[in-house]
Amino acid sequence: MLSKQLIKEKVSMALDEDLRYGDITTGAIVSPQAQGTGIIYAREKGVIAGLPLAEETFQALDKTLDCSPLVEEGERVKQGKAVMRICGLLRPLLSAERTALNFLQRLSGIATLTAGWTRELEGFPAKLTDTRKTTPGLRALEKYAVSVGGGVNHRFSLDSGILIKDNHIHAAGGITAAIKRVRAGASFAWRIEVEVTDLEQLREALSAGAEMIMLDNMALSLMKEAVQITAGKALLEASGNITLERLREVAATGVDYISSGALTHSYRSMNLSLLLE
Amino acid sequence: MLSKQLIKEKVSMALDEDLRYGDITTGAIVSPQAQGTGIIYAREKGVIAGLPLAEETFQALDKTLDCSPLVEEGERVKQGKAVMRICGLLRPLLSAERTALNFLQRLSGIATLTAGWTRELEGFPAKLTDTRKTTPGLRALEKYAVSVGGGVNHRFSLDSGILIKDNHIHAAGGITAAIKRVRAGASFAWRIEVEVTDLEQLREALSAGAEMIMLDNMALSLMKEAVQITAGKALLEASGNITLERLREVAATGVDYISSGALTHSYRSMNLSLLLE
Amino acid sequence: MLSKQLIKEKVSMALDEDLRYGDITTGAIVSPQAQGTGIIYAREKGVIAGLPLAEETFQALDKTLDCSPLVEEGERVKQGKAVMRICGLLRPLLSAERTALNFLQRLSGIATLTAGWTRELEGFPAKLTDTRKTTPGLRALEKYAVSVGGGVNHRFSLDSGILIKDNHIHAAGGITAAIKRVRAGASFAWRIEVEVTDLEQLREALSAGAEMIMLDNMALSLMKEAVQITAGKALLEASGNITLERLREVAATGVDYISSGALTHSYRSMNLSLLLE
Amino acid sequence: MLSKQLIKEKVSMALDEDLRYGDITTGAIVSPQAQGTGIIYAREKGVIAGLPLAEETFQALDKTLDCSPLVEEGERVKQGKAVMRICGLLRPLLSAERTALNFLQRLSGIATLTAGWTRELEGFPAKLTDTRKTTPGLRALEKYAVSVGGGVNHRFSLDSGILIKDNHIHAAGGITAAIKRVRAGASFAWRIEVEVTDLEQLREALSAGAEMIMLDNMALSLMKEAVQITAGKALLEASGNITLERLREVAATGVDYISSGALTHSYRSMNLSLLLE
Amino acid sequence: MLSKQLIKEKVSMALDEDLRYGDITTGAIVSPQAQGTGIIYAREKGVIAGLPLAEETFQALDKTLDCSPLVEEGERVKQGKAVMRICGLLRPLLSAERTALNFLQRLSGIATLTAGWTRELEGFPAKLTDTRKTTPGLRALEKYAVSVGGGVNHRFSLDSGILIKDNHIHAAGGITAAIKRVRAGASFAWRIEVEVTDLEQLREALSAGAEMIMLDNMALSLMKEAVQITAGKALLEASGNITLERLREVAATGVDYISSGALTHSYRSMNLSLLLE
Amino acid sequence: MLSKQLIKEKVSMALDEDLRYGDITTGAIVSPQAQGTGIIYAREKGVIAGLPLAEETFQALDKTLDCSPLVEEGERVKQGKAVMRICGLLRPLLSAERTALNFLQRLSGIATLTAGWTRELEGFPAKLTDTRKTTPGLRALEKYAVSVGGGVNHRFSLDSGILIKDNHIHAAGGITAAIKRVRAGASFAWRIEVEVTDLEQLREALSAGAEMIMLDNMALSLMKEAVQITAGKALLEASGNITLERLREVAATGVDYISSGALTHSYRSMNLSLLLE
Repeated sequence: MLSKQLIKEKVSMALDEDLRYGDITTGAIVSPQAQGTGIIYAREKGVIAGLPLAEETFQALDKTLDCSPLVEEGERVKQGKAVMRICGLLRPLLSAERTALNFLQRLSGIATLTAGWTRELEGFPAKLTDTRKTTPGLRALEKYAVSVGGGVNHRFSLDSGILIKDNHIHAAGGITAAIKRVRAGASFAWRIEVEVTDLEQLREALSAGAEMIMLDNMALSLMKEAVQITAGKALLEASGNITLERLREVAATGVDYISSGALTHSYRSMNLSLLLE
Repeated sequence: MLSKQLIKEKVSMALDEDLRYGDITTGAIVSPQAQGTGIIYAREKGVIAGLPLAEETFQALDKTLDCSPLVEEGERVKQGKAVMRICGLLRPLLSAERTALNFLQRLSGIATLTAGWTRELEGFPAKLTDTRKTTPGLRALEKYAVSVGGGVNHRFSLDSGILIKDNHIHAAGGITAAIKRVRAGASFAWRIEVEVTDLEQLREALSAGAEMIMLDNMALSLMKEAVQITAGKALLEASGNITLERLREVAATGVDYISSGALTHSYRSMNLSLLLE
Repeated sequence: MLSKQLIKEKVSMALDEDLRYGDITTGAIVSPQAQGTGIIYAREKGVIAGLPLAEETFQALDKTLDCSPLVEEGERVKQGKAVMRICGLLRPLLSAERTALNFLQRLSGIATLTAGWTRELEGFPAKLTDTRKTTPGLRALEKYAVSVGGGVNHRFSLDSGILIKDNHIHAAGGITAAIKRVRAGASFAWRIEVEVTDLEQLREALSAGAEMIMLDNMALSLMKEAVQITAGKALLEASGNITLERLREVAATGVDYISSGALTHSYRSMNLSLLLE
Repeated sequence: MLSKQLIKEKVSMALDEDLRYGDITTGAIVSPQAQGTGIIYAREKGVIAGLPLAEETFQALDKTLDCSPLVEEGERVKQGKAVMRICGLLRPLLSAERTALNFLQRLSGIATLTAGWTRELEGFPAKLTDTRKTTPGLRALEKYAVSVGGGVNHRFSLDSGILIKDNHIHAAGGITAAIKRVRAGASFAWRIEVEVTDLEQLREALSAGAEMIMLDNMALSLMKEAVQITAGKALLEASGNITLERLREVAATGVDYISSGALTHSYRSMNLSLLLE
Repeated sequence: MLSKQLIKEKVSMALDEDLRYGDITTGAIVSPQAQGTGIIYAREKGVIAGLPLAEETFQALDKTLDCSPLVEEGERVKQGKAVMRICGLLRPLLSAERTALNFLQRLSGIATLTAGWTRELEGFPAKLTDTRKTTPGLRALEKYAVSVGGGVNHRFSLDSGILIKDNHIHAAGGITAAIKRVRAGASFAWRIEVEVTDLEQLREALSAGAEMIMLDNMALSLMKEAVQITAGKALLEASGNITLERLREVAATGVDYISSGALTHSYRSMNLSLLLE
Repeated sequence: MLSKQLIKEKVSMALDEDLRYGDITTGAIVSPQAQGTGIIYAREKGVIAGLPLAEETFQALDKTLDCSPLVEEGERVKQGKAVMRICGLLRPLLSAERTALNFLQRLSGIATLTAGWTRELEGFPAKLTDTRKTTPGLRALEKYAVSVGGGVNHRFSLDSGILIKDNHIHAAGGITAAIKRVRAGASFAWRIEVEVTDLEQLREALSAGAEMIMLDNMALSLMKEAVQITAGKALLEASGNITLERLREVAATGVDYISSGALTHSYRSMNLSLLLE
């Protein structure tokens, strides 16, 4: 659920990169009165995300541009599907085109990737979740796209959740000590998650009261054992080296969540383009 | 050549996403006096880009953190190479870790991809160039990474170059008319580039005085013909469906530039991580 | 744990309110070379919070001003205690005075209030916590001051925790439905807290799996009963009409947390002033 | 008279604190189509201030939310009075609720306090005025609320008025010298006010041409004498230790203005809440 | 072609300078309901530029103010001509007056100056162009005004064009080396311009492939010779000491462009004022 | 007295206009290690203002650039005088050059103009003052330059002083009514100034208690009469059509202040340039 305010802020940032001094080519060629209609088409199949950003981009340059989404946010579309129609003055329409597509292609790319992976998990209890390995400045949008694609968001930031990692454990002198400190000092609003790399650490985390445990780069057999040991006393998150190929076998271990940084750090943009009618 | 000012602005934007209210976990666990040394390692081979951003990230949280790059910006490194050492207070070191890596992994990802493609072009006159298909908010950084990787930057924005595309041609009523309007209205600081899809358009562009011509999605045979027709009277840029596999055969047509949006819209982040010593 | 970046941003905002066009009086009267030493004194007893903000305020106007805190952040001081010494050019020292005090007085006011209430809770397991009823623009600072005073922070924002309130329950058609929807749609990073007003709602929340339950404006006798019913299956937070006078009797019911909006919406600033030596 | 621009800026700052990544709870529970009507009620009597800020808060999240103030800005209301009605989509309505109330409760708190004190001054010529002891970032709003409550604003900032304080007098080497320097160097747009602590200083200020004199922490008997000595040759402002209890006796000395930092640094927020119909 | 976004940003910056705490005089005198109609008149003849900025200024303070331009942007008007009519609430109308005029007077001043010089060039092929000697913060607006007045914009910024100046030549060790480095490292999107001070440098620049050559402070006779030597192989720009008096004789040398910093650094504002009907 | 914070903000705004994507030419030509020394010279005589802005410009791009002012701020220099020396890395030195000069040339232009006019007033009591007719975004800097040149600043903004103009008088129904309203509603911190156009208005303003009276576009003979009528009961400001030629005869009327918008809206930039040693 993106706020209107955030959408405006990000669109403004993007437009400022592209045309502070104006669109030279369009300004020289297209007359100020010329009208037109543009259609954004999907040039490959995928899951559409980012329509509100595309819409805001056109309207930031000209409030009178009429934008009609032709699909739902999150809809799975085929190649060739018309995704949005924009009617009105040709100058702002052309000047906004690239920026609108830059948003739409990236967010749809993430949503498509997430949806593809999520589909692999059908039939398993495990859910797909993201990380903080997001593009600087776009975290809110990228996490939003993960949720549009059917994934579940992990904490948004260092100030919205607790994850005790190896360096914290090292600094505290052990898992038990780390959990104790967090319980004493941090808010009750967040569950306490601990990253572990072997079963000994898992057992310590469990007995220290961890509510979530991240199994970091564990072998499948170890993960299965971890699920048995945990026996529902905490949620388990598999992490590290998650690929589409391995998804189902990881899920088969019985973990509750599977997290992947690749969803936001190594996605491919979806191919979309704008054509004038 | 990134300005200090831009680096600060982008780092500030990224940190604000992650820890406005502070790093809950680190604040609860790590003592304010604890010291440490972190090393950023390459977990796969690649070309490093973004060291100044990583450095600024650590120092924005604590000016006294001592950051020493262990490689040159743009250096090709092997898996396992130590890339940067950071010494000082453990709290800001851990709080900045993810944000510093987010910059470094993305820019190194782009530089690595660009360098790989550039290497394919060795022996050909053609140079690799980028597009405006960049991540909203990160265009300056992504274009910088392309140049670190050995690519040549295309125009940065709609206000720093002229590219007459199909929609402009349509609006002007033809290539000749479009070029005439641009020549009359726009600055002489920029070369005039025109996008063409067939040889007829190419000939019209040439006789109308285009200085750069983008061959959009042309077949290899057509591109070769285009090179012959042009005969050095304009620079030629091949564009559309450029993949690593096709690079050499496209270059073999004799074009001057090969442009690819994928360099910035579909790159994979380079795998880097920070370990405490 | 306030980040350096946030401190700078808030100080910059405050100085901009006070002297964009300069300090007219000081500029006309005080010579540019005049030096001085100012001491900030506590004019009443209290708990000091905000020293890093005061320091940044002076240094934002002149990096060469030498600021030495004379007490620890969070220290309880008596009336008359010297809290900070600032030496250097007199012009920036006088121009920054009011802004530095405005931060220090407010945050110390909150810390003092929180510490006073926290002391009342000694001997009880209950902890004092805050709310989102903070001053627009100062939430991070005010929540920080609560923690300096010994309180525990509740969620920082709508995007860093889950609290199902009456309006949400109404919209979902019941507590059970609301919890189910949150569990399906929101991240596992956060505990699920539900606001209830009677024991029937409490029982429903418990059986639906709430991990935190806010007892809203309940009578003491009901709260006691709630503690018995809950029997440790969830954390309980007493809320509504919390005053210093009622604190101990609320704590005596056995709840885990007692929250108060007054900590941040109706505090009195601590009396501090700066004198030139 | 708040400008539209300032209102937008402050609302944007506040919303950004609360829901950058969205309202998790509402997003998970409330359907995007759900409609509702919220009424903001006064839960205690007071003077309402801040309606334009509340309105902007709702509309910043959704322009189509229909906000109808049910009282006038500055109106004195009884407990239970409906103050504003908001109709439209339930999601933005609930997400904006707390931020809108945070503005309204604070500004109404200040207006109520100011109005109460102002009423005490009825029958006396003295007027109530504020100080620069305002909350960082909210000075314009807090000073506005003082004026809504019937107070008169003192200078807004160091760059919008002249007040020669003890430290300035000390730096100049005396009141006469300080006034002379200000007269030479500063604009004629501002009256010259001097802070004095005894009658000797008062006489010097008068003969040096001060137009306003602040009587700092003077005893009542001294203030009476000051009024007689001044005899209308300058305006007199009583300052320091002003409480509701002392207001009338201070006013009875015949001073022109009574200033109080407490109006903005130690007010209690007015109790207001939003209920869904 | 100014973007809507830039217009809003600049207007917001200007209004913030003038009335953050409100318009004291208007707030005290004019009733909130008072209506009025203001007309902006030209008090001298000139070319009008900046109407969209004036309009945005009024509407930023009150969206319901009705602004009707009475002339076209770029129109040459006589003394006494009504330029814009604004109807609606009197308070925002008066508060915005000065800021709206400050934009309109400056941009019209530049457009008028440019148009006057441009007229001198009638009959010559030479075109008038601007420089980067613009007012900090207003470059986009000032360059826009030059284009409204009939001038041609030179590069907007250091990142939107290439100009090799004496210091670059010195650093590279010569013109040929400098051009070679630029050709290797910079984008093909820009023409390469070189600044020369004598004919020897001109010849070197030509043989090194410069596409534009700036003749810096050359005598008329030298410029004529330069035109002959160049013989159309590059565009020539005359620069330095350009005055209205010298324009025609400079143009008569046959150069292609004549650039002047004075267009933006030493213009006189056009006299315009607002009267209430 | 410019605050460090304002200087940074304005320099940052200016640099952002010029090199967001970097300095293409310098980046391609100058090696990252190259060192140099630049000297800013006065190419005409004048009064220097803006040295702190020039210094900040260089250091914003590279903190290690060593900037040494060679004259005092406000010093009157002859043609050829070296004004500032900058040593260090050549790249940031060249990239900052234009922006630094843009500040320095404008502010020195204003200071020079102001100083020239001020000198004309020697021997008269009248002082030169400025207006709100400043460049959008640069008011603080331009008013500062006026004061450096020896002028006295009028109010900075609509929120830092009171000036009742014809439109206010019209709205109030007369001068007396307008003054009464202001006295009732606005702060005592500001003197009340009224604009009058004839002696009848002058008399009304005086008897209504105006403390400053602006004589708008009055003939010299009328101004003399106004001085006699006023007889020191208020300060008088001559305004409208002030030129260097008329300054002394206006001053001879005996007015206290002479204001001119031209000081900030129609000044000529001082000719300064940077040479590498």
